[in-house]
Amino acid sequence: MNIEMIRAAAQRIKGHAHVTPLLSSPFLDKIAGRRVLVKAECLQHTGSFKFRGGRAAVSALSDAQLMNGVIAYSSGNHAQGVALAAKEHGAPAVIVMPSDAPKIKVNNTRALGAEVILYDRATEDRDAIGQRIASARGLTLIRPYDEPEVIAGQGTVGLEIASQATALGVTEADVVVCCGGGGLTSGIALALAADAPKMRVHPAEPADFDDVTRSLAAGKIVSNARLSGSICDAIVTPQPGNLTFPIMQAHCGAGVVATDEDCLRAMGLAFERLKIVVEPGGAVALAAALFYPEQFTGDTVIAVTTGGNVDSATFIRALETL
Amino acid sequence: MNIEMIRAAAQRIKGHAHVTPLLSSPFLDKIAGRRVLVKAECLQHTGSFKFRGGRAAVSALSDAQLMNGVIAYSSGNHAQGVALAAKEHGAPAVIVMPSDAPKIKVNNTRALGAEVILYDRATEDRDAIGQRIASARGLTLIRPYDEPEVIAGQGTVGLEIASQATALGVTEADVVVCCGGGGLTSGIALALAADAPKMRVHPAEPADFDDVTRSLAAGKIVSNARLSGSICDAIVTPQPGNLTFPIMQAHCGAGVVATDEDCLRAMGLAFERLKIVVEPGGAVALAAALFYPEQFTGDTVIAVTTGGNVDSATFIRALETL
Repeated sequence: MNIEMIRAAAQRIKGHAHVTPLLSSPFLDKIAGRRVLVKAECLQHTGSFKFRGGRAAVSALSDAQLMNGVIAYSSGNHAQGVALAAKEHGAPAVIVMPSDAPKIKVNNTRALGAEVILYDRATEDRDAIGQRIASARGLTLIRPYDEPEVIAGQGTVGLEIASQATALGVTEADVVVCCGGGGLTSGIALALAADAPKMRVHPAEPADFDDVTRSLAAGKIVSNARLSGSICDAIVTPQPGNLTFPIMQAHCGAGVVATDEDCLRAMGLAFERLKIVVEPGGAVALAAALFYPEQFTGDTVIAVTTGGNVDSATFIRALETL
Repeated sequence: MNIEMIRAAAQRIKGHAHVTPLLSSPFLDKIAGRRVLVKAECLQHTGSFKFRGGRAAVSALSDAQLMNGVIAYSSGNHAQGVALAAKEHGAPAVIVMPSDAPKIKVNNTRALGAEVILYDRATEDRDAIGQRIASARGLTLIRPYDEPEVIAGQGTVGLEIASQATALGVTEADVVVCCGGGGLTSGIALALAADAPKMRVHPAEPADFDDVTRSLAAGKIVSNARLSGSICDAIVTPQPGNLTFPIMQAHCGAGVVATDEDCLRAMGLAFERLKIVVEPGGAVALAAALFYPEQFTGDTVIAVTTGGNVDSATFIRALETL
């Protein structure tokens, strides 16, 4: 992995992925006690940053690979990102999804033309299922985070943060990124190390599902004790990736955590002050920025709101915190 | 009014106003039966396009005028736009607001440092109140739409639509704009006449409050029969402006209308598919684009979602339409 791969991915997705805005509100600044900038990746195609990695990976394939098709496993956002990218390239897509994924994510993935295969996340191994089907059908497996072209695609968020923040006169900041397996976090960290080296990246995770935070503290990969029980379903993963963890070790500051309740409050404030829809797992970085200011040292914090695929019932819970 | 004033306003607000994204979803395209692009002005500072006009007008004032301060009357969005622009220039601001304006808009306007004076919209004339206080206190009155620099500021939305759509290969489209007094609609129409002359602008209004649509059809200014009773409060005005109407006559196609219920459905779809928060009056253009496709003829419709300042209770009504 290197910065050139990220710049090449940026060229390939240009005009296809949105350059998402860097939003702000004086009301949020007041809550956090410092300037807060929000990189609104929930506005990306398919409602999350995952389209960048999907598009970057699919667009790197050969014509023969595209004709055979691709396969991905995902709790939902990577599924939609890969499905849309495959559709745009005319490539068949198979998506392996947990049977307890939000129905809207399953339906959206099917509506984007993909074949969906469900599995039980408590008893089955999604990587093994993905590899088995990939080899049986000759599909190219696009992993959700431990995949160089996916990390490169997600890293384009970092290139945009560097250029958009610089345009506002901000070159030093704590950059807080909602973190599951670490594809987005490591990609952003690599991009900022090159383009905005005074920015410090912090992975943000739900309390009790803080494998990356604990792994960084321990200096080695450690796992979550369990994989269900958080409303931040989109970013609950067993442990940091083998590719992503060393990058985060080299380039990231300490991880930060926020509770499910904090995420709902951050979603409510994002509705009220920024007019964006954020899902629980996409709000954990903003929650940390707003409600745990003592974890940061600089004048500015940049929080990436990574996704907006949330059902009405959960969103109403967030509105009720206002 | 001319295109040079809009380009000059664009220079003055550059780096202060957001270049809002042009969003899309294959799911919305399917509903409308054609390509739908959404200019998400609800993501603008203060939650509506009104910041552009406020900033353009305030930034055109002399130092002496800024020191004396500004006054505006508004149901809420223009209030916040002018208040923030004044604050950024260190100028005092007085805002005259109807006593039945949504509480969040009154509170936000005060929180932005403005002095708020309430009036009864059924019995008092806001323009008379504004002019009286302006001359008593030496303030500069910034009207919400019949004000050249305000129209110029709103017209910057049109410059962005032309350049963003062209980047997507779209040069012909029906451009649907939520319309109250016509400041935004006339500004966009002027900008597109210069930069994208194959685009046709259509004002969009709530059913039963369609003064602009009827005025365009009649060839002269006609008024609304009443001024309350729509959830689209932000865009209910007595009649088109004296400055804005001739511009709309010269450059706009027929007006389109949608019901309050259509607006709620469009807000729900904007939540689900675009991850943006739109207020009822900001959703009428999208509602027309999605649910009244027979009013348009081209392959692409561009809907401007003009604001996102909506309370939780109304937003929950929109979610319940999903």
